[in-house]
Amino acid sequence: MSKTPDSAVRAYIEQHRAAFLDDLAEWLRIPSVSAQPEHAADVRRSADWLAAKLQETGFPTCEVWATPGAPAVFAEWPSDDPQAPTVLVYGHHDVQPAAREDGWDSDPFEPVVRGNRLHARGAADDKGQVFFHTLGVRAHLAATGRTAPAVHLKLLIEGEEESGSPHFRALVEERQDRLAADAVIVSDTSMWSEDTPTVCTGMRGLAECEIELHGPDQDIHSGAFGGAVPNPATAAARLVADLHDEHARVAVPGFYEGVTELTDRERELFAELPFDEQEWLRTARSTATHGEAGRTTLERIWARPTAEVNGIGGGYQGPGSKTIIPSSAMVKLSFRLVAGQDPDHIEKIVRAWTAERIPAGIRHEITFAAATRPCLTPLDHPALQSVARAMGRAFEQEIRFTREGGSGPAADLQDVLVAPVLFLGISVPSDGWHAPNEKVELDLLLKGVETTAYLWGDLAENWRDAH
Amino acid sequence: MSKTPDSAVRAYIEQHRAAFLDDLAEWLRIPSVSAQPEHAADVRRSADWLAAKLQETGFPTCEVWATPGAPAVFAEWPSDDPQAPTVLVYGHHDVQPAAREDGWDSDPFEPVVRGNRLHARGAADDKGQVFFHTLGVRAHLAATGRTAPAVHLKLLIEGEEESGSPHFRALVEERQDRLAADAVIVSDTSMWSEDTPTVCTGMRGLAECEIELHGPDQDIHSGAFGGAVPNPATAAARLVADLHDEHARVAVPGFYEGVTELTDRERELFAELPFDEQEWLRTARSTATHGEAGRTTLERIWARPTAEVNGIGGGYQGPGSKTIIPSSAMVKLSFRLVAGQDPDHIEKIVRAWTAERIPAGIRHEITFAAATRPCLTPLDHPALQSVARAMGRAFEQEIRFTREGGSGPAADLQDVLVAPVLFLGISVPSDGWHAPNEKVELDLLLKGVETTAYLWGDLAENWRDAH
Repeated sequence: MSKTPDSAVRAYIEQHRAAFLDDLAEWLRIPSVSAQPEHAADVRRSADWLAAKLQETGFPTCEVWATPGAPAVFAEWPSDDPQAPTVLVYGHHDVQPAAREDGWDSDPFEPVVRGNRLHARGAADDKGQVFFHTLGVRAHLAATGRTAPAVHLKLLIEGEEESGSPHFRALVEERQDRLAADAVIVSDTSMWSEDTPTVCTGMRGLAECEIELHGPDQDIHSGAFGGAVPNPATAAARLVADLHDEHARVAVPGFYEGVTELTDRERELFAELPFDEQEWLRTARSTATHGEAGRTTLERIWARPTAEVNGIGGGYQGPGSKTIIPSSAMVKLSFRLVAGQDPDHIEKIVRAWTAERIPAGIRHEITFAAATRPCLTPLDHPALQSVARAMGRAFEQEIRFTREGGSGPAADLQDVLVAPVLFLGISVPSDGWHAPNEKVELDLLLKGVETTAYLWGDLAENWRDAH
Repeated sequence: MSKTPDSAVRAYIEQHRAAFLDDLAEWLRIPSVSAQPEHAADVRRSADWLAAKLQETGFPTCEVWATPGAPAVFAEWPSDDPQAPTVLVYGHHDVQPAAREDGWDSDPFEPVVRGNRLHARGAADDKGQVFFHTLGVRAHLAATGRTAPAVHLKLLIEGEEESGSPHFRALVEERQDRLAADAVIVSDTSMWSEDTPTVCTGMRGLAECEIELHGPDQDIHSGAFGGAVPNPATAAARLVADLHDEHARVAVPGFYEGVTELTDRERELFAELPFDEQEWLRTARSTATHGEAGRTTLERIWARPTAEVNGIGGGYQGPGSKTIIPSSAMVKLSFRLVAGQDPDHIEKIVRAWTAERIPAGIRHEITFAAATRPCLTPLDHPALQSVARAMGRAFEQEIRFTREGGSGPAADLQDVLVAPVLFLGISVPSDGWHAPNEKVELDLLLKGVETTAYLWGDLAENWRDAH
């Protein structure tokens, strides 16, 4: 296996580091807050800025794709090897809202370097992590002497991720032909820590529903009628209570059907991570762990499906008391899903399980939101091995593996493009995503650049070997 | 046993009927709405009007008793027999809010007679039922030739019943010596129906609490943390779900301790009432009954203790979804109690039961409101027999027995004065308490007058026999 000489890559990066950071700062000055209508023009300006920058980087195709919401940016740079695999990089150019008065030490849209950190809204989430791909591909070319990347490289950088990606799946479906890829690289995640660089191998899926329960036509007197008619708030509570058995396993029959179990190797790898439960509890703002019996906390949040009640309501919730049997109640449930689970199946069994539990005299309606599928790339997948190897060269240490408990638009890419999803992120938990004083560690940002400089060559070579 | 000649009573009532109804109409014109501050002066005017009218009726003592809220009226007419028992009549002179535009066919405070019905706010609840005592005691005197009643007669007519009687218990405690009585007659209830005159023999008590459950310091992400920390909304739901066992019995250990069981005779009497479950379900605005196994609906609402959730809330209750584990949740529970149950004991066992159910990592606070004790007069109590007999003479038919599922200030009188509580009400469910076009059936109103005309003599005589 031939490798790009690491010293050449590092020299190239060192040489272009200042310009790279100046450019990133320029982009960070655009307050591309997708959630705030007053920043709609800024989001469009951010897309235009990025398209122009990618063109300057060398991408022969750079387009701004309109959506019914904020625009996405698409860029493509074909390999000079027609047999090369196609890789699609995903990220987003919109950012979370931020205001100085939220607790920022400086203007969130005026980037500031303090020590080894670049502070600005979007520094880590996600402009910094999108931007390392620009210098990365240039370093790859410079160090290898190529004029085009070793893989067919595509970028899709959406503009509505911080607003729940409402038009993303439709965009991917519509542009499916242009987006076709053999693998997807998502650069919008975090590593375990600065000391423990990691690759995320999957995210959980998500199925969500709201159940409304209707009892008496209107609130009725709990003295006159209490004890003799069904109470919809009781029925709602019983649904939630019945969700889990005494081992904190989800009790909906068939829920675990098809679940991909952790391999012994994955379980070992999880156990090797320097996990500090007290520290984790602090980030969870909780005082005790609780979950499926026989599973560690990391297994519970990364590798096991769950059911949680996100909201419950019914009857009188104001101060003091009101002696009523409420007319209605509602619960909002969400199910995190893991590989092997099918959201359509989950919806079917949850509907049946709910219907079975509703007593006579209570009418119910259950509504499911659009689901997100889980995604998981096996540890031995050659593309995942390439990512881990490229990171290992950049970080000069062993790369470990994690997963994410949350769910994201990556699953749409996996589904529509029928391609494995890999996660290449250099952010760390302390970067303060969505929080004041968001920052990116400059050393790690440049490790991201370096990783991609190695990645495309490694991927092209090993992909060929594997297929 | 000597009886007042019924024909003499009827003749007296017939003779004074017009003036009695004119006086009642005058009182009904005073909009004594205790819940609306703009009517505070009207409530005071109503108290003054009643005190003056009671003086005119012949009560030697008539006082308006101030409270921190609206005033009550107290009147006393000692018997000429120093050995006679003392009876305290309870009612209220304040009324529910009412406005023409709520659906009234005429001004709610301009009484109108249509056919056999007198329509006005307060006609049945409770001015009409207080007022029949005025003509009643005069008819009693006229027909027996006495100059003072056969019992020591006291009236306490409060001014805040429709606002939850916030100062009533304190008033009764403060004026305990003046209010001392051997029996309390509450005239603020309904009969089964026009065709089925009844006496209520008891009301349920009430214990209420609110439980707050606190989990994470703030809402946390259900993807990042879901499945690994305790969810306070789940804990809240489990409390509610655990309240009842599979037979719909309250599952808090010790809850049924001391409960006075229905006697076979009471059960028979309940079963003899012309109860139509479909009709009852319409008034309950429900489509199915549900309750303690092995009990009829009437037993469930009148004679059995219950637990109901009046409100539950936690997490996100707005439109759409929010994938959080909520920081907190709360439930409001109320327990209806029957004779033999002690609210202090209920509070103790509910606190213990709750504490046992809260998982590690959830902190809870439980707050009990002031409780109301249940009250129940045994069927064979001589005073109850007197009420039933007096009603039987007035209505010329057998009087049946009911109970009330709700809870009321009568229990305070029972507790503080340590006296049995009897219910003498002539209203019927169709009278529209708290609704537009409230009315009282004139025939029944005069049966109320007639009942009290017989009652004081019967009570004095039989009390002496029984004691």
